Amino acid sequence: MTGSDVGGTIPSPTPTLRWTGDSIEIIDQTRLPAELALIDVRDTATAMDAMERLAIRGAPALGAFGALAVVVGFDEAAPRSLDEARSVLERLRTQIGDARPTAVNLRWAVDRTIDTALGTPAATDTATLRERLLAEAQAVGAEDAEACAEIGRLGRQVLADATNIATHCNAGRLATAGIGTALATVYAKAAAGEPVRVLASETRPLLQGARLTAWELTDAGIDVSVVADSAMASLIAAGEVDAVMVGADRIAANGDTANKVGTFVHALAAADAGIGFYIAAPTTTIDPEVPSGERIAIEQRDPDEVHSVGGRRLTPAGAGAVNPAFDVTPARLITAIITDAGVLRPPYGPSIAAALAATRGPRGRAD
Amino acid sequence: MTGSDVGGTIPSPTPTLRWTGDSIEIIDQTRLPAELALIDVRDTATAMDAMERLAIRGAPALGAFGALAVVVGFDEAAPRSLDEARSVLERLRTQIGDARPTAVNLRWAVDRTIDTALGTPAATDTATLRERLLAEAQAVGAEDAEACAEIGRLGRQVLADATNIATHCNAGRLATAGIGTALATVYAKAAAGEPVRVLASETRPLLQGARLTAWELTDAGIDVSVVADSAMASLIAAGEVDAVMVGADRIAANGDTANKVGTFVHALAAADAGIGFYIAAPTTTIDPEVPSGERIAIEQRDPDEVHSVGGRRLTPAGAGAVNPAFDVTPARLITAIITDAGVLRPPYGPSIAAALAATRGPRGRAD
Repeated sequence: MTGSDVGGTIPSPTPTLRWTGDSIEIIDQTRLPAELALIDVRDTATAMDAMERLAIRGAPALGAFGALAVVVGFDEAAPRSLDEARSVLERLRTQIGDARPTAVNLRWAVDRTIDTALGTPAATDTATLRERLLAEAQAVGAEDAEACAEIGRLGRQVLADATNIATHCNAGRLATAGIGTALATVYAKAAAGEPVRVLASETRPLLQGARLTAWELTDAGIDVSVVADSAMASLIAAGEVDAVMVGADRIAANGDTANKVGTFVHALAAADAGIGFYIAAPTTTIDPEVPSGERIAIEQRDPDEVHSVGGRRLTPAGAGAVNPAFDVTPARLITAIITDAGVLRPPYGPSIAAALAATRGPRGRAD
Repeated sequence: MTGSDVGGTIPSPTPTLRWTGDSIEIIDQTRLPAELALIDVRDTATAMDAMERLAIRGAPALGAFGALAVVVGFDEAAPRSLDEARSVLERLRTQIGDARPTAVNLRWAVDRTIDTALGTPAATDTATLRERLLAEAQAVGAEDAEACAEIGRLGRQVLADATNIATHCNAGRLATAGIGTALATVYAKAAAGEPVRVLASETRPLLQGARLTAWELTDAGIDVSVVADSAMASLIAAGEVDAVMVGADRIAANGDTANKVGTFVHALAAADAGIGFYIAAPTTTIDPEVPSGERIAIEQRDPDEVHSVGGRRLTPAGAGAVNPAFDVTPARLITAIITDAGVLRPPYGPSIAAALAATRGPRGRAD
């Protein structure tokens, strides 16, 4: 269920997240690229802190991590009865599931893991319940890795003629339990021997593009150049970008897509220049209960992330800061959404509904 | 000729640049906002270094500074004959005038200062020539301060209904010899007791918005909040911005405008949201010899500016970087250009030509 298990294009042997047998081992993404440090997550507080600090981030990776974090939390609580176990799981459902409000995969994966384990036939003891939790949590990660591989296969077909691919934030192996979403296409092209160059916008305030996308692509031997977020539009206008591909944190039923703040301007620039703008995401990122982008909750993060870089204060005392973590790109600016259930095209209402029906069945999500 | 001489809204007594009698004293803008340090510029090497490091920057301020730098270079060379003096001035014309290729005001101010001093009736000795150089250089700064005041007066009329004003980079008193260009409107509104709040995009890589715009507005007691460059579009889309106003480094004859990289995406976002996008600049920023934006030379700066913040490396070894200093906003996205010769509206070809005819006369520029 880890990036290094899927495909042969990633030289680094260290997976983004891994179940050790009694804990979750993750790369501390706040320390990249300066050092490859690991965190051993064996209690809920450490799991919450890792999500809050973005030591682990990316909607699909948060899903895989959150599912395993339920197991960690369950072990930590060590419930002695099934009644106590159910109470523990309901607490963990809220605590872990709501840690990052925009990433729908986290809520989905936590619900799926807990609901499946609590499902019929009911577990008769806490040990069986714990076995079911772990099996389901590992399935979440394994399925995400499979979804990434399929997204890469489809993305390579869609971007067959593209060499210079722009991306924002990090939607690569560090953001998933597989080879990534947006970057899955890049890995698939590289694995097939096709020329590919990535232009990565740095992604202030937390620099996931400059730090993480640049690190994982450099690590894989793929050509990557970093640009200031607001400079990408001029490179697009100058014809230096063939296509823009990004990930997603939540996709509404009409195709409006929430992703890392700054995604929207890339879509505006691509539309203005007449090049393709693509979302790559597993179907678990789609939230059919949200009809449009106006209804997607946008997480507001600490203004200090804008005031500082690496602990160094940039702004004068007395200045305010506004720090939305995500923005919403309207469906009208999206050329296609590349999912594990196929390449979705406008109008997105019907194409998204069809993809969900194919993957989740008539009973709705999380089947 | 300094910001503190114009209007009463700026509490800081330290001007952006000032002629001391035998040198130029400037604020070292690379040290803001952490400290208010001054540089005494009394030789050409120091002047060149200050421009290269962006210790002084902003197209109008570069014009005022470059004109005075000619006097400093002349004094340093201490020519003993008029022939030697002319040779010195031609060297300075190239050396200082070409220091920043995109800022047309610099080339214009240096040419104006030297050409006026060398004009008829010819100076009969080097002392007279030096007097003429200083008088003309000081006139450049004084006229820029007057232009800023007029731009503020007009901008306040145009933005009478705007309270929340977004800006990019720094087009304030730190960028001019007066109260700024884009920020002149803000100062004029504040001086008139009108409510005004500035949303300043931080302006990576060198953070002129986070450091300089936030510093000078905080210093003046004006409400300012900093946002990541790529977050501004989502605030604009959410209706939190009434108008966008920025400065300019060079305006082509058709209205296409080169300004700090990142300006273009603000214009795209404003157009998409249906709010006004304004350029504020003195007519000296207009380059009638450049027919359109495609012909504006864009300075490419050191990739290390992207790789690092404040000396701290952000990107992994092996990653490249692309660092264009400016971008071009096409005239079609510009609501109006606010100049000291009036508010110019589309179509910009005729309105720009009329403004230039009014300010420069039939003989062309630099009159």
